[in-house]
Amino acid sequence: MRIGVLGTGIVGRTLASALLSNGHEVRLGARNAGNEAAVAWADGIGGPASEGTFADAAGFGELLFNATAGAASLDALALAGAEQLAGKVLVDVANPLDSARGTGPVLTVCNDDSLGEQIQRTFADVRVVKALNTVTAAVMVDPWLVDGAHTIFVAGDDAAAKTEVGELLRAFGWPAASILDLGDITAARGMEMYMALWLRLWGAAGTAVLNVDVRPAR
Amino acid sequence: MRIGVLGTGIVGRTLASALLSNGHEVRLGARNAGNEAAVAWADGIGGPASEGTFADAAGFGELLFNATAGAASLDALALAGAEQLAGKVLVDVANPLDSARGTGPVLTVCNDDSLGEQIQRTFADVRVVKALNTVTAAVMVDPWLVDGAHTIFVAGDDAAAKTEVGELLRAFGWPAASILDLGDITAARGMEMYMALWLRLWGAAGTAVLNVDVRPAR
Repeated sequence: MRIGVLGTGIVGRTLASALLSNGHEVRLGARNAGNEAAVAWADGIGGPASEGTFADAAGFGELLFNATAGAASLDALALAGAEQLAGKVLVDVANPLDSARGTGPVLTVCNDDSLGEQIQRTFADVRVVKALNTVTAAVMVDPWLVDGAHTIFVAGDDAAAKTEVGELLRAFGWPAASILDLGDITAARGMEMYMALWLRLWGAAGTAVLNVDVRPAR
Repeated sequence: MRIGVLGTGIVGRTLASALLSNGHEVRLGARNAGNEAAVAWADGIGGPASEGTFADAAGFGELLFNATAGAASLDALALAGAEQLAGKVLVDVANPLDSARGTGPVLTVCNDDSLGEQIQRTFADVRVVKALNTVTAAVMVDPWLVDGAHTIFVAGDDAAAKTEVGELLRAFGWPAASILDLGDITAARGMEMYMALWLRLWGAAGTAVLNVDVRPAR
């Protein structure tokens, strides 16, 4: 499949490399074509890897990942172009963290709204699936790094889109039993607000390579 | 030990009963003495169980639990009386849920503050330990209800207070290895914001009897 990954940070590059390994053609999109990290990635990794603007990546991809900084995601998607997003599955892995605030990261949107919902409202024809935002980049594409069984959440209004994303997750190594569908896109609130807990888990563990396993009643 | 439990809902009564079973003397506190649920509890359970006002329970207890509705907790603690709280360990199990808002529960405080911090700021001489707010009442006092290992968080500024609360948790059945100290009271933000995810986990599971297990890196 042709996949566009918006965002050239560690999350975008990690996803792009793993998708390439799984046999997809991948274009990494940045605010400007020729982005240093994107060019280095495309040149270094070989295979059907390319880079360009957000619009280039969005036009290229049959399916898209939003791996931009959450506070900048709506702007990045506007640059990608609503008409190039329309009808496509968009996996939103971003967290709306505002690292500029003094007392530790806070969210730019939360509680009665979420970035996932904002994206779905702003680009109504996009099939948004919130996923993977609850783990660090390395774990997204290699769940084996965390010991034992652990859970990855998906949420979105389009059941077929969630099924398609579930197949990509399984190719990353997530067992079907570890993929938990939390329902419609409003579940993105909980998935994003979990960042506040996750940052403390990271602090307590001394590493971001961790996750939670949802344990059922006996 | 003499323990005062503020709040006569299912959380307060469940904690009070379990503490009584573990050999403590327990007074359940309500806004008004003679609260129907509190009287029924004290009359029905036998042993060193009593009920009274928030102030009665706070004065009685050497250690206190805040099991009031989060949106009303600061008022309840003011009625309990700052001078009766001073120097005592207060286990804050409340979540600041605003069930009055139309689109599903939201928090009355979150992101750059938390109920746990508000309580600690308002009653500076109280040794606040945020704990148990991330599981349903039955699981708080009987972690065996959830299958396999799973994690309970504690946070607070007073290390000795957290140790004391850890002993109460162990008496409820939480293994030492499952008690995770997230640091100072600002970690209450993440523990309370987790409610937004937890409510969706409940929805997905069809039961509130569940929890998460924090899984480390291999």
